[in-house]
Amino acid sequence: MEVYRNIKADDINQLILRPGKNNTELEQIVQAILNEVKQEKDLAIHKYNYELDGVLLDTLEVTTDEKRQSSHQLSEELKSAINKAKENIQKFHEAQRDPILEIETMPGVHCWRKSLPIQKVGLYVPGGTAPLFSTVLMLAVPAMVAGCSEIVICTPPQKDKTIHPAIIYAAELSGVQRIFKIGGAQAIAAMAYGTETVPQAFKIFGPGNQYVAVAKQLVNKDGVAIDLFAGPSEALILADHTANPVYVASDLLAQAEHGKDSHCLLVTTSKDLLLQVQIHIENIIETNPRFEILQASVKNFRLILVKDIGEGIAFSNLYAPEHLIIATENARDISKNIENAGSVFIGHHTPVSVGDYASGTNHTLPTNGSAIAYSGVSLDSFIKKVTFQELTIEGLHNIGPIVKLMAETEGLHAHSDAVSLRLKWNERQHGKTL
Amino acid sequence: MEVYRNIKADDINQLILRPGKNNTELEQIVQAILNEVKQEKDLAIHKYNYELDGVLLDTLEVTTDEKRQSSHQLSEELKSAINKAKENIQKFHEAQRDPILEIETMPGVHCWRKSLPIQKVGLYVPGGTAPLFSTVLMLAVPAMVAGCSEIVICTPPQKDKTIHPAIIYAAELSGVQRIFKIGGAQAIAAMAYGTETVPQAFKIFGPGNQYVAVAKQLVNKDGVAIDLFAGPSEALILADHTANPVYVASDLLAQAEHGKDSHCLLVTTSKDLLLQVQIHIENIIETNPRFEILQASVKNFRLILVKDIGEGIAFSNLYAPEHLIIATENARDISKNIENAGSVFIGHHTPVSVGDYASGTNHTLPTNGSAIAYSGVSLDSFIKKVTFQELTIEGLHNIGPIVKLMAETEGLHAHSDAVSLRLKWNERQHGKTL
Repeated sequence: MEVYRNIKADDINQLILRPGKNNTELEQIVQAILNEVKQEKDLAIHKYNYELDGVLLDTLEVTTDEKRQSSHQLSEELKSAINKAKENIQKFHEAQRDPILEIETMPGVHCWRKSLPIQKVGLYVPGGTAPLFSTVLMLAVPAMVAGCSEIVICTPPQKDKTIHPAIIYAAELSGVQRIFKIGGAQAIAAMAYGTETVPQAFKIFGPGNQYVAVAKQLVNKDGVAIDLFAGPSEALILADHTANPVYVASDLLAQAEHGKDSHCLLVTTSKDLLLQVQIHIENIIETNPRFEILQASVKNFRLILVKDIGEGIAFSNLYAPEHLIIATENARDISKNIENAGSVFIGHHTPVSVGDYASGTNHTLPTNGSAIAYSGVSLDSFIKKVTFQELTIEGLHNIGPIVKLMAETEGLHAHSDAVSLRLKWNERQHGKTL
Repeated sequence: MEVYRNIKADDINQLILRPGKNNTELEQIVQAILNEVKQEKDLAIHKYNYELDGVLLDTLEVTTDEKRQSSHQLSEELKSAINKAKENIQKFHEAQRDPILEIETMPGVHCWRKSLPIQKVGLYVPGGTAPLFSTVLMLAVPAMVAGCSEIVICTPPQKDKTIHPAIIYAAELSGVQRIFKIGGAQAIAAMAYGTETVPQAFKIFGPGNQYVAVAKQLVNKDGVAIDLFAGPSEALILADHTANPVYVASDLLAQAEHGKDSHCLLVTTSKDLLLQVQIHIENIIETNPRFEILQASVKNFRLILVKDIGEGIAFSNLYAPEHLIIATENARDISKNIENAGSVFIGHHTPVSVGDYASGTNHTLPTNGSAIAYSGVSLDSFIKKVTFQELTIEGLHNIGPIVKLMAETEGLHAHSDAVSLRLKWNERQHGKTL
C-alpha cells in the first residue's frame, strides 16, 4: 500500500495516470488470428480451440440437449438468485426506453427520433477459473429489452468440452438464441466476420483478457461496432470519518480480487480511517481463499489523505473511476458534484458487489479514465436512434428560403435546387405561391 | 449511371458494398503529424499551417475583435436564416434530454441514471472552397444544450489568415468559447493532446478529408473519444410511380455535389420514373456551377429497378444508407419498416437539404453502412449517462443473499465478503437481524 498525504498538482497528475501499454507485438499476434479466421473460418476456429484451449470439439454450438440439462444441474437457490438479478436488470433497462419524440420545429416541419434495435449482436463471455454468468445477464438482458433479433454468445469451453450450466441457464433466461464454444481472439473474429457456423454480428460486447480486448479494438477499426475498450477494473472510495473501516477495507479487497492489475484507491479526509483500513485489510485477506492474488494486489493500493471532501471530489472527477463509492455523511448530496464516473455507489450500505450482480444497473463500465467521455453499457448500447422528418408543402415553403440561402452561401447549389425545383413545380401546379 | 434490373442475391451483395480502403500509408503520414504535435505542440502547428495551408499566423486563436466584426460582415438575411436554423436544431436537441430515471428495483434498492455533459469537446470544421457554418451549428448547438463547459473549434484559416465570418457568427451564436485557425490532422492532434494554446478535448467531433478522418481514428485508438468514422456521403431514394422525377433527380444531384465519391442510389418500382430521372439529371446539371464535379459523380449513380416496394425496403435495410428518402405513396407507413438508416426523409416535400441545414435533426450521420450499429450525432453524443445506486440497510438485507450466492458461484469471495461484513456488523450493532 502506498500512502499519500498533502498531495500537490504533480502527485495528482501521477496518481490519475493509468499505466500505458504498447501493444504492437500483441496486435500482430491477434491480427494474424483475425486474418486466419476471416479466411479459414470454422477450420481456424477448431485449430485455435485446440491450440489455445486444448479442446477439440465435434460441434461448436451448445446443443438443445445441453441447454435442457443446464437447468437441472443448478440448485434451486442459485436459479432463484439468477432469476431475481435478471428481473432487476430488466426493470432498470426497460425504464431506459425512449418514447418516440416528435417535434414540429416550424409549422409543417415534423421531426422525430425513433430507437431501433441493432439486429445482430455478439456477446463474449470470458472463461477462466469461474463461470461469469453475471456477464451473460448484463449483456443479454439489455439486448433482449432492446429487441435485438439475433443474440449469440461465444464463450470458451471447459477442458471437458462443456460450458458451465450457470452460463447456459442465464443465457436461456435472457433470450440468447445460440451459444458457441469459442474463446479468445478467435471468438471475436468469428462474430466480426462470420464463419460457416457462427453468424456475423453488427456489434460485439463483453470483457476478456488482453487478446480479446485487442481483437475487439482491431475489428472496430475494421468497421464492426464494439461496446467499450475494457481495461483493468477500478474502484475509488471517497470516505470521511463516518465511514466504517471494515466496509472500506472489504470494498477495496473486492475490487482487488479481480486481478493483480486492479486499481484500488481510498481518498479520505480522515487520518484515523486511513490507519484502521490498513489494519482491516490485513485481517480480512488472511481468511480469503484468494489470499495470494489479494496480497499482490494490496501492494498497489493507494490510500490518499485529502484536506477536505471538496479536494476528494475534485480528485475523483479528474481520476474518473469505473466504480466510485461515496462513504461519507450526506453521500447523496455529495454525489451531485460527481462529473466523471462509470457507476456511483452511495452511502455505507452500498458495496460495489450489488451493482456487479443484482441491483439492476449494468456492470459493464468505462475504465482507464474513459468515463470522462464514455458511458457504461445500457439499453442505448443495443439500439440506434434514427431521425425522421416529414414536411408538408407549407413546411417546405416556411423553411425553404432559409435552406436555400444557407446552401448557396456554402456553395452547395444543387442543395438549393432540390428546394427550388419543388417550390416552383408546386407553384406551377397550383397557379400561385402558397 | 448504371442501371440494374432484376437484381439477384449476388448483385445485392455487390451493390451494398462500399469500396474498402487500405490506409496503411496514409496512417503512417498522419501518425507522424500526430507524434510531432504531441511533442512540439504549437511549434508543430505553426509549421504544418505553413506547409499545408500556406499560412503563417502570429496568433492561432480568433481574436475578440475578429469575433465582433464577423456579425457586421454578414447580411441580415443570412444572419436571420442562421438564427432560425439554430433555433430549430436547438429545439429538436433539447427535446432529447432525459429526465433522471430513479427506479426502486427491490425494496430499499434505489437505482438511477443521470446525464452528465462531457466537459471538454473539440469540434472540427473543414475549410476548403466553402465556409461550412452549418457544421458549426450541428455540433456546437447540441454541445451547448448538453452543457459542455468547454467548447472549442479548430478550422483551417483562409489564405488571407482569416476565418469566414459566417463560421465565427454561427460559433458565437452557439456558445463556442474559442476558435483556432488550424486545419487537417494537426488540428485533431492539437485537440487530442493539447498544446500551449489549444486545450485538450475529451471528445472530438466533425467531418473532414481523409487526413482528418484517419487522425480521428488514430487518436481514438489512443483513448480520445470521437463522434463517428466519416466516409463519403450517401443517399438512397426509394421511389414509386407517385414520385416526381424532377425532385428525385435534384435529390440525387444534391448528394452528388458533395464530391465525386458520393454514393447516390435510386431504388424504384417504376420503369417510367427510372427513365425520366435520367433525362432530368442531364437537364439539371447543365445549369449548375459545379457542372464538372456533378458530371463525374453522375457516372457512379446506381439506378435500381425492383419488383415491388418490399424488395426496395429490404435492399435499403441491407444497404443502411446515411440518408434515405422515401418518395412513395403512404411514405410514413413505409418508414415504419426501416431498420437501418442514418436519417429518413419522408414524402415528396422533404429533400435531404432541409435536414442538412435547418429542419432540426442533425446532419452528422453514420456512413459506409455503419447505420446498422451507429446513430448520428445527437445530444447523446455530448453526454455520459452515469448510473447511481443507494441501498438502505433493508435493501442490503433484501439483495444480500442473492449477491453473495452469485459472487461465490463465480469464485469472487471478497465480493461476497463486502456484503457479509456489512450485514454482520449491522446485526451486531442492532443485536438482531433486521
